[in-house]
Amino acid sequence: MTPSGKLPRVVILGCGFGGLFAAKSLDGAPVEVTVVDRTNHHLFQPLLYQVATAGLSAPAVAAPIRNILASQSNATVICGDVQRIDMARRAVVLDGDDEIAYDQLIVATGATNSYFGHNEWEQHAPSLKTLDDAYEIRRRVLLAFEHAERETDLAKRAAWLTFVVIGAGATGVELAGAFAEIARHTLRGEFRRFDPRNARIVLVEGSDRVLPTYPASLSEQARLQLESLGVTVWLGRQVTGIDERGVQMGGDTLVAHTVVWAAGVAASPLGASLEVPRDRAGRVIVGEDLSIPGHPEVTVIGDLATLPWHQPPVPGIAPAAKQMGSYAAHKILQQLKGQSVAPFCYKDYGMLATIGRNSAVAVLGKVKLSGYPAWLLWLIAHIWYLIGFRNRIIVMIDWAWAYWTFERSSRIVTGERRRP
Amino acid sequence: MTPSGKLPRVVILGCGFGGLFAAKSLDGAPVEVTVVDRTNHHLFQPLLYQVATAGLSAPAVAAPIRNILASQSNATVICGDVQRIDMARRAVVLDGDDEIAYDQLIVATGATNSYFGHNEWEQHAPSLKTLDDAYEIRRRVLLAFEHAERETDLAKRAAWLTFVVIGAGATGVELAGAFAEIARHTLRGEFRRFDPRNARIVLVEGSDRVLPTYPASLSEQARLQLESLGVTVWLGRQVTGIDERGVQMGGDTLVAHTVVWAAGVAASPLGASLEVPRDRAGRVIVGEDLSIPGHPEVTVIGDLATLPWHQPPVPGIAPAAKQMGSYAAHKILQQLKGQSVAPFCYKDYGMLATIGRNSAVAVLGKVKLSGYPAWLLWLIAHIWYLIGFRNRIIVMIDWAWAYWTFERSSRIVTGERRRP
Repeated sequence: MTPSGKLPRVVILGCGFGGLFAAKSLDGAPVEVTVVDRTNHHLFQPLLYQVATAGLSAPAVAAPIRNILASQSNATVICGDVQRIDMARRAVVLDGDDEIAYDQLIVATGATNSYFGHNEWEQHAPSLKTLDDAYEIRRRVLLAFEHAERETDLAKRAAWLTFVVIGAGATGVELAGAFAEIARHTLRGEFRRFDPRNARIVLVEGSDRVLPTYPASLSEQARLQLESLGVTVWLGRQVTGIDERGVQMGGDTLVAHTVVWAAGVAASPLGASLEVPRDRAGRVIVGEDLSIPGHPEVTVIGDLATLPWHQPPVPGIAPAAKQMGSYAAHKILQQLKGQSVAPFCYKDYGMLATIGRNSAVAVLGKVKLSGYPAWLLWLIAHIWYLIGFRNRIIVMIDWAWAYWTFERSSRIVTGERRRP
Repeated sequence: MTPSGKLPRVVILGCGFGGLFAAKSLDGAPVEVTVVDRTNHHLFQPLLYQVATAGLSAPAVAAPIRNILASQSNATVICGDVQRIDMARRAVVLDGDDEIAYDQLIVATGATNSYFGHNEWEQHAPSLKTLDDAYEIRRRVLLAFEHAERETDLAKRAAWLTFVVIGAGATGVELAGAFAEIARHTLRGEFRRFDPRNARIVLVEGSDRVLPTYPASLSEQARLQLESLGVTVWLGRQVTGIDERGVQMGGDTLVAHTVVWAAGVAASPLGASLEVPRDRAGRVIVGEDLSIPGHPEVTVIGDLATLPWHQPPVPGIAPAAKQMGSYAAHKILQQLKGQSVAPFCYKDYGMLATIGRNSAVAVLGKVKLSGYPAWLLWLIAHIWYLIGFRNRIIVMIDWAWAYWTFERSSRIVTGERRRP
């Protein structure tokens, strides 16, 4: 109880993995929870690339937040844009100047994409963070093939049939692998004026290997699997420009009408309003209990937080965000009881990245897997962790269907059609 | 064969039910078929209202045209906007001034919505024709409840919780019934500051009964079923204005932030470029073989055509468009053999409209059904006719799940968020 006799108010900003696990960990606790998110849904981010590549429908990877939390009677869900955090008054200011007061604040607004100071590249090379981003990428990729069918000039057609993914982290690798499958398998036999198998998928990476956060041997395995799927992998190439013609790398131009950006991540701009030290990517430097200096009532978790004191470093992946969310909830409840907590400690269950059909890499402690066993593990893990029983069934059917038929279930284009 | 020795070129504009059935009926025939559509997908229009009401995902009711026609080797699919038809030169002009020459043209571009000269109403009251329309309606309906949760002023909250559907044809009835289910069942228990069951769904109709094209006794059954679902039905009310406050009917204003237009239909504007007589709704008046006066090589089918010589009148529903599509293909093939065809004759298999869970009405010749038997018939018919084996399975699972749980699978909001 607070001095006023009311239940302590815990406000959670953002309902990704971190925010959702914080909220759920407070179920039944003597606190009032308010979850604020810009959208109405929790997004299962690890499968978002499948929406962008027409493998799954958007509702299969997203669940309404208020449905997930419906039976948690101490939780209120608010759909709103956070404008700023007023730490002096302990209030969050939303769009329309609505205010929500807090006793404890958990900031879990995650990361957005960074074009390294070249925001003008975004219109030519969208990136993948939200469902709207996924629709946009799906639209561009599917319509590029449609344009190629209409184009009679061979050079112009080749530009429509060249797909560039910039950045070979997990998202870039997944996208490039899926684009190759679309061209080689899904669309086979559907065009009369060209063979979609001749489409060129180029994965461009600035460092000297794909999946740079993985062990070097797995990076090499991943590169070989990508190439066997038909992806051209260019390593050690720095992008110096992107425009309507294509991608510039130093003096060379790769002519392409469809470019996707998977290279840079920056922390949510809300981090800046906390007025505490941040790292180069804008992530908030948090203490051992994930709070910020001078404000024990403000906890920052997930991709927005950086933990320089933690060894080995905590990766920016879903399991880390979930663990921080649960920890933040636990810490708040312990503090209410007047008890202290041990520092946050990340428990590493491993990392998984998929490349395509039967292709993936995985690290589980000292065990490294690649190819079919890694892919099977990836499949099971992602279905297991997908929020919502119904989504799991739909995703399993979609995947089983796609596996046997090579079709992709969500090949529809909506929104404005792009002109050549 | 044409005089030049090439195969006759049949160009089909629009790939709704009419265009798709015309194309499929030409499979294997000695003609070159080109199908032109603005989108990349055939839309199963009878279930579009379920996308708008969060019951189904968009990919469940749409299938890529080139996938449907992949194995039909005489068919080419072009994704493009038809700008005009040059009948003197027998060519179709697309966006970008691409041209497609034809020997036989089938125009099947259907209908669009009409605001009876009040296009300024559209921004306040979107209508339902495309997947983008369905997303827009879904977004407005779901976000209205989100706004209501944030609103503390009771009158303002009531405006967010009032949903108006204008026009009580099949689409209007289906939308109103689904909105009522969302409010009464789907969202129950998910809001903390109001009870969604208190939302008000108003169905406004200008004539004196709902489903005016159905027998009067079924109209009355439908009205009773709507009211038992919680829909307020206002008959004989003329809408005189729609703006950001709500709907004006004479001197009265119904205050509502969410209004959907299901009242008027107008033929596709492409009909005007044919320069032949049209009816008041812009539909092209066709002869007994569905061709237009002076141009036996131009056939108009589906919702774009009107057949004043046909008794009883041909309704603007999917089975009629399909029959016209098959007839047009048959006619063209007979003419190539130098044979004539009998006039088009619509075979009436009946009409079905659904209202909600266990609620529907149906006319099958002289048999009239309503309630549960009609609903079961509707369910079977719609799954049966849904294009694509996979879509049928997904839809069945979604429906079975929704039936038992009252949940709706596609409750996600994408695109720009509307402000109060």
